Amino acid sequence: MQKETVTIPARSGKAARVERGQSVTVINTHGSQVVDTWAFNAEHLGEWMSMEHSRPYYMKLRPEVGDTLVTNERRPILTLTEDTAGGAHDTLIAACDAPRYGLLGVTEYHDNCADNLTAGLAELGLTKPVTPSPLNLFMNIPWTEGGELSWEEPLSEPGSYVTLRAEMDLVIAFSACPQDILPINGRAGQPTEAHFRID
Amino acid sequence: MQKETVTIPARSGKAARVERGQSVTVINTHGSQVVDTWAFNAEHLGEWMSMEHSRPYYMKLRPEVGDTLVTNERRPILTLTEDTAGGAHDTLIAACDAPRYGLLGVTEYHDNCADNLTAGLAELGLTKPVTPSPLNLFMNIPWTEGGELSWEEPLSEPGSYVTLRAEMDLVIAFSACPQDILPINGRAGQPTEAHFRID
Repeated sequence: MQKETVTIPARSGKAARVERGQSVTVINTHGSQVVDTWAFNAEHLGEWMSMEHSRPYYMKLRPEVGDTLVTNERRPILTLTEDTAGGAHDTLIAACDAPRYGLLGVTEYHDNCADNLTAGLAELGLTKPVTPSPLNLFMNIPWTEGGELSWEEPLSEPGSYVTLRAEMDLVIAFSACPQDILPINGRAGQPTEAHFRID
Repeated sequence: MQKETVTIPARSGKAARVERGQSVTVINTHGSQVVDTWAFNAEHLGEWMSMEHSRPYYMKLRPEVGDTLVTNERRPILTLTEDTAGGAHDTLIAACDAPRYGLLGVTEYHDNCADNLTAGLAELGLTKPVTPSPLNLFMNIPWTEGGELSWEEPLSEPGSYVTLRAEMDLVIAFSACPQDILPINGRAGQPTEAHFRID
């Protein structure tokens, strides 16, 4: 049976339920779109995928194929099983939000990943307990030996994808990041749609 | 007037109220003790110092003298104004907690920083909304070019200190980390007291 490919519309959020053992493939359809990704225990949204708990679990700044991300209760929630996107994903940077665009000089409302998480979960009738620090798929934030960070373009190409296996029944949520001031979604500053599929 | 120096007892937590403009000096009394540090808006504990919001603010893996940490609402909360401890502080690793010691093979209750935050705030009649990812003062977690992390001993010496200036009225909380399995508090695995002073 052909599995449905779901669109994450440009600048928007989308969430889905995933059963333990299923795999979620996140596709960078147009090649340079950052996709903020969250996961919550389906039975208890107070348990969520946590970057600060996952780093000590695999002792890396970012997960690689074979690494398992854990929750704020230190239980496995997602394993990275495939990555054709060059490995540059970010675990360091908070989701963009209204105050973020204020600091960047935006005076009107700007779409943002924190609100997109809220909206994506709302379509499933769910409310986020907080905005956890996301797994920013395809987001290229290199570090130097001295610890400096920089905003760079994704290394991915059109059709690049990442596959994550669910280690518990969970709710996954995505935001096609609407950042159009910093170059994280490509120098053109043109946020696009992305897609995902659950197998 | 001689300012009071407050003890953070070994393996324990302690919190205090700090007014905007005051400075908090955290002293590594015995030289190799990690001190997990949190700060909350005194008027609204739902606003807290956030590592994932601070990293994009100063674009570094860890703050250096002159850098300002911000809250989950992206407002300045603490500025690092002095550091005699060699600069190795961690922003990447979650506070230790009961499940952490479970993963390390501990079967009985083990003191932990998450519970110490709870206890420190309770002495002020306060309840934490969540356990934010802490600023781990004196905690030495180097990274490699490839992104690998490792657990290392502090670079600090007896009497090394860090000073933080309050940018809003806040509640600061500390835990003298009770980690005695990994070498983060020195190879001897002997957690000690530490001290702080508010000027």
